[in-house]
Amino acid sequence: MNTPPIRQNRPLNALRPVRITRHYNRYAEGSVLIEMGHTQVLCTASIEEKIPVHKRGSGEGWVTAEYGMLPRATHTRGEREAAKGKQSGRTQEIQRLIGRALRAVFDLKALGERTLRLDCDVLQADGGTRCASITGAFIAAHDAAAWLLERGLIAASPIRQTVAAVSVGIVGGQPRLDLDYAEDSACDTDMNVIMTADGRYVEIQGAAEGAPFTRSEMDALLALAAQGVAELTALQQQALAA
Amino acid sequence: MNTPPIRQNRPLNALRPVRITRHYNRYAEGSVLIEMGHTQVLCTASIEEKIPVHKRGSGEGWVTAEYGMLPRATHTRGEREAAKGKQSGRTQEIQRLIGRALRAVFDLKALGERTLRLDCDVLQADGGTRCASITGAFIAAHDAAAWLLERGLIAASPIRQTVAAVSVGIVGGQPRLDLDYAEDSACDTDMNVIMTADGRYVEIQGAAEGAPFTRSEMDALLALAAQGVAELTALQQQALAA
Amino acid sequence: MNTPPIRQNRPLNALRPVRITRHYNRYAEGSVLIEMGHTQVLCTASIEEKIPVHKRGSGEGWVTAEYGMLPRATHTRGEREAAKGKQSGRTQEIQRLIGRALRAVFDLKALGERTLRLDCDVLQADGGTRCASITGAFIAAHDAAAWLLERGLIAASPIRQTVAAVSVGIVGGQPRLDLDYAEDSACDTDMNVIMTADGRYVEIQGAAEGAPFTRSEMDALLALAAQGVAELTALQQQALAA
Amino acid sequence: MNTPPIRQNRPLNALRPVRITRHYNRYAEGSVLIEMGHTQVLCTASIEEKIPVHKRGSGEGWVTAEYGMLPRATHTRGEREAAKGKQSGRTQEIQRLIGRALRAVFDLKALGERTLRLDCDVLQADGGTRCASITGAFIAAHDAAAWLLERGLIAASPIRQTVAAVSVGIVGGQPRLDLDYAEDSACDTDMNVIMTADGRYVEIQGAAEGAPFTRSEMDALLALAAQGVAELTALQQQALAA
Amino acid sequence: MNTPPIRQNRPLNALRPVRITRHYNRYAEGSVLIEMGHTQVLCTASIEEKIPVHKRGSGEGWVTAEYGMLPRATHTRGEREAAKGKQSGRTQEIQRLIGRALRAVFDLKALGERTLRLDCDVLQADGGTRCASITGAFIAAHDAAAWLLERGLIAASPIRQTVAAVSVGIVGGQPRLDLDYAEDSACDTDMNVIMTADGRYVEIQGAAEGAPFTRSEMDALLALAAQGVAELTALQQQALAA
Amino acid sequence: MNTPPIRQNRPLNALRPVRITRHYNRYAEGSVLIEMGHTQVLCTASIEEKIPVHKRGSGEGWVTAEYGMLPRATHTRGEREAAKGKQSGRTQEIQRLIGRALRAVFDLKALGERTLRLDCDVLQADGGTRCASITGAFIAAHDAAAWLLERGLIAASPIRQTVAAVSVGIVGGQPRLDLDYAEDSACDTDMNVIMTADGRYVEIQGAAEGAPFTRSEMDALLALAAQGVAELTALQQQALAA
Repeated sequence: MNTPPIRQNRPLNALRPVRITRHYNRYAEGSVLIEMGHTQVLCTASIEEKIPVHKRGSGEGWVTAEYGMLPRATHTRGEREAAKGKQSGRTQEIQRLIGRALRAVFDLKALGERTLRLDCDVLQADGGTRCASITGAFIAAHDAAAWLLERGLIAASPIRQTVAAVSVGIVGGQPRLDLDYAEDSACDTDMNVIMTADGRYVEIQGAAEGAPFTRSEMDALLALAAQGVAELTALQQQALAA
Repeated sequence: MNTPPIRQNRPLNALRPVRITRHYNRYAEGSVLIEMGHTQVLCTASIEEKIPVHKRGSGEGWVTAEYGMLPRATHTRGEREAAKGKQSGRTQEIQRLIGRALRAVFDLKALGERTLRLDCDVLQADGGTRCASITGAFIAAHDAAAWLLERGLIAASPIRQTVAAVSVGIVGGQPRLDLDYAEDSACDTDMNVIMTADGRYVEIQGAAEGAPFTRSEMDALLALAAQGVAELTALQQQALAA
Repeated sequence: MNTPPIRQNRPLNALRPVRITRHYNRYAEGSVLIEMGHTQVLCTASIEEKIPVHKRGSGEGWVTAEYGMLPRATHTRGEREAAKGKQSGRTQEIQRLIGRALRAVFDLKALGERTLRLDCDVLQADGGTRCASITGAFIAAHDAAAWLLERGLIAASPIRQTVAAVSVGIVGGQPRLDLDYAEDSACDTDMNVIMTADGRYVEIQGAAEGAPFTRSEMDALLALAAQGVAELTALQQQALAA
Repeated sequence: MNTPPIRQNRPLNALRPVRITRHYNRYAEGSVLIEMGHTQVLCTASIEEKIPVHKRGSGEGWVTAEYGMLPRATHTRGEREAAKGKQSGRTQEIQRLIGRALRAVFDLKALGERTLRLDCDVLQADGGTRCASITGAFIAAHDAAAWLLERGLIAASPIRQTVAAVSVGIVGGQPRLDLDYAEDSACDTDMNVIMTADGRYVEIQGAAEGAPFTRSEMDALLALAAQGVAELTALQQQALAA
Repeated sequence: MNTPPIRQNRPLNALRPVRITRHYNRYAEGSVLIEMGHTQVLCTASIEEKIPVHKRGSGEGWVTAEYGMLPRATHTRGEREAAKGKQSGRTQEIQRLIGRALRAVFDLKALGERTLRLDCDVLQADGGTRCASITGAFIAAHDAAAWLLERGLIAASPIRQTVAAVSVGIVGGQPRLDLDYAEDSACDTDMNVIMTADGRYVEIQGAAEGAPFTRSEMDALLALAAQGVAELTALQQQALAA
Repeated sequence: MNTPPIRQNRPLNALRPVRITRHYNRYAEGSVLIEMGHTQVLCTASIEEKIPVHKRGSGEGWVTAEYGMLPRATHTRGEREAAKGKQSGRTQEIQRLIGRALRAVFDLKALGERTLRLDCDVLQADGGTRCASITGAFIAAHDAAAWLLERGLIAASPIRQTVAAVSVGIVGGQPRLDLDYAEDSACDTDMNVIMTADGRYVEIQGAAEGAPFTRSEMDALLALAAQGVAELTALQQQALAA
């Protein structure tokens, strides 16, 4: 089977160009603009000195996320969720995923009884926005934790290790890393993989869009994903070292 | 590490007792009450002679699902979503999952321009409600397809193969099949696996609740899930043969 | 005028077969599945150790109800209220009625500052669901009161007497007891009567669907209703004695 | 038992002073301000040349009602339903009642495929607003029907007879006609009775607020109500003759 | 250019007949029915012994407003906002404007920690409802302040001076005072001017409906508005002296 | 009186640094990032080949706007409107203003029966976001009109002239141009002025935040605004010439 023409010069196992701009917003305790190809997500981390009811008196903090997309982030304009009066099922699914992914690397005890709220807003969408949100939100969260440390509000960093995410999929019979929108629309199987720096899984979500997939296809995708997350982890560390 | 006492006499690789009651509702084109241990889900399949806008004129039908839980399905009463005025993110996530799982085994062309709507309502919840919903909804969908065939409304069955789902997880360091609520609350990793009769994956969702999980843990969970789905597939076939 | 064929072998003054299954749900403090012919309602009673604002500090408790219908409880599927984002006027009317009916036989002082919340969910609807809900909810409430007594949380039963409800109507010129859906759709006048064991009225709601009704028609309906409620009261007492 | 002092000089079987002002609004096809004591309801009837989906192509029209209360119609200000974002259960119950009451005296065929929409807005509330709404809405509906006749849009009046409503109740052991707010708050039993000019019942809703009521109490209330409706019917006819 | 015929016998710089009826509602602490031509607005002022969160502990009170229109206040019936489930942008804009206008003349310190809530409900709308609301609400607020003074709940009046509002516009090339609905629909420029008794501006909102307007047109409109507000101020003082 | 220190080195009649980046988004028919000091607004213009009901068959198009703010655009995080389930009154007021401003310079006939939808999303807010939205949206609209012209979808530009907006206010007794957030919070009077290139007014909204303002203060503000809009108009023309 021929490779579909959509990827052009990018090898099947290559990430799109990644750009991470820290301190993009002047008010948030942490903020980053992450770009993966044409996908652009603005992630901010806000410290709030209050916590949800189910955590009160627990001595622990909370980490949570919200996700949104500007109406014209996409090829054709989508309806504004605020105007519609509710968030779609897709939006809720994604923001719950981002929240779980970040909590997986946080020591909520060390955070103290406060909330770290991550806002991931997609300025432009060309596939992979939930993964870019997680990878970017980690950096914003890291900067917000540093902000707390600098002010002596916490004694030690509440972050246990890095977390990053990437999408992989089978398009035209071939496993590919970091699908763009055209590939995502054409793929048979699509998988989002969230991993830590030590190669463990935080979450994995794989779905057949067309025909169900085999165990060996899954193994190929997991290998690609592990490589992609390792590269993203290195880019996160570079960005944080800058 | 000791095995936690929660499973009592059930082996770690055993399903809970499964009971499938077809034709539970006298009005729906297909209906089933599925019980897995104390979990009870009433699944109905309704044929509607209309389709959503994005399918009009396509010559294809649509398969979709809705999910709900009676307020006192659970140990402590939950708020009624209709009274609250919206479905939770969890509810939307689950109903989207059920819909995708069923569409994966449907030939939408063969269904014709009509909608098959699956309602999965949890009467009692003791863990694994989304998996039970999928396994039960398949049977209700099958009966609705038979209803269409009997009336000559379609020429051939639109169902390509069976689909079933099971949860697996790591509790106290040990992989276990078909978690009940107590195990689900105590587990480190939780995975829902949706597979077809020929052992392919329709969807897989695994999440670390506590520490991230390793590749070998994932492999152990996938093996357990494959076994569990095979047993459920056999039970579905028995029920349909009755 | 000929009797319309819809009732078949049931005499005009006969209830449909009634079946009451106590302890239907394993978590609720009280629960019952009540069936009247093909109508099936699952009633649960939940004790909540909190009360609404208007009762705080009053030394009294509160009894309230919610009502719902599974989407495919009916001949053709109805829209799910949780998905629509609001309860219909009909639903609100019915749940307010159930709450008033139960409060009429409760001593709120004896209940203490807690809430007894009744959920009446219709699994299958063939007419008379609001009346079945009241008759069933009384038993669930009774079991929840017993639960409080057994645990020593209250000193004496807060229930003053039984309450039950039945529908009556004029179909084809003839007064009939306990209308099913087909009769309800064809009736000229429809009346729901809620009474206590001593033959007093808790609530009566009668409406002309077609031509307004006369005083003598009302008297005939009230006589039928009194007989029907007396039979239901006996069935409640049998069920509670079991 | 002593009569409670709340009624002062009004006999127990007397209506409050009734005032009916036709053509209160200059835009509506029919409009009336009805006052019963301090209760004031502005009723407008609007002709709309469209009908709801369930009536399309039926050759019949539709009559429906909406009900509202100005926030400060009452002793203490109530929340504005438009600001709260939904109509209360009570509001929906009342507007459904008004709609049914008016439809009972309309020949929908004679109305033609159009909607007659009645808006009943309470400017000041001192008890009995739903009954005043029905009595007033009838006059507004009558004027709107006349408007259609004058323009030749219909050939014959779609109104079959008059309809009016009154509340009755037992306060301090005594049956009373046309309760004001203070009586309504203190009553044991409260009944709204909707009747036609020929003394038939359109709808009756009676509820025990305190102890359940007996058959002889019901009979006393029905007699009072029949007298009250007869007086209101005469006042409607006077107003329409003016 | 010819003057359009819509104003008939009213000079271009004349207000419509104004009628102010104080104490229109028997329950509110202050209330007024204000009529400007066919426009009728019922304004009530309610004292609430609580304040919004952002004012708690400030030693200051709060003044706020809500606005509504009866569905048939207008030539053709508008949808009821309570039924629709939300207030329109127009409604919110107007009620925010009324609130700001009234706060501009209130000494919130002198009001004490309580809320003065103004409800402006349009019974009939023939243009200029927001201006009539402000002019009327001032009188209702004044009466509510007097109510507080009489009861010794405040030591001195919290009202610093009067406020009134009028609309002006350019219709057919000519500046006009106090536009009615027909003029408002036909105007090129429309301006609402809110002023105090000493001729200062509280708020001014001018918008070109057709062609943008020049500075000299604005000056002409401001002169007309100042004259109109002065007349309304005199009428307010007359009404309060009565 | 001393000038408050908040403006530092910027003269009272100077705009903040303005930066206009065209073609910021790769999908929209027109898009611009406009920055005024720290305020950043992303404006996109989307062409939709459908129009609202009230324009169907009119031969005219429609221009409308939506406005939003990212939750952490501000010093402290604001609630996400999509999560809250409704747009605030402020948001609706602003988006209606933007829509009117743009329609004032559009020939809707020349646009044809299609909608031009402007989305103004505030990435960072330091005062003046509604004015920046208008000034930026004009450029995005211009590029979308050019897009239509290039494709031959319209025969002539539907844009009649430029429109731009600026805020002015009195802070510490002194009229100032283009207030930032700190000035806006401290000002006595705040005015938004929207003008065309030929110096006419499209809309003016002035409000006293503290004491009402005099006619001479208004004149001073209008003079500053005219100067500011002239400068912004020149910057728009520069950007469009680039």
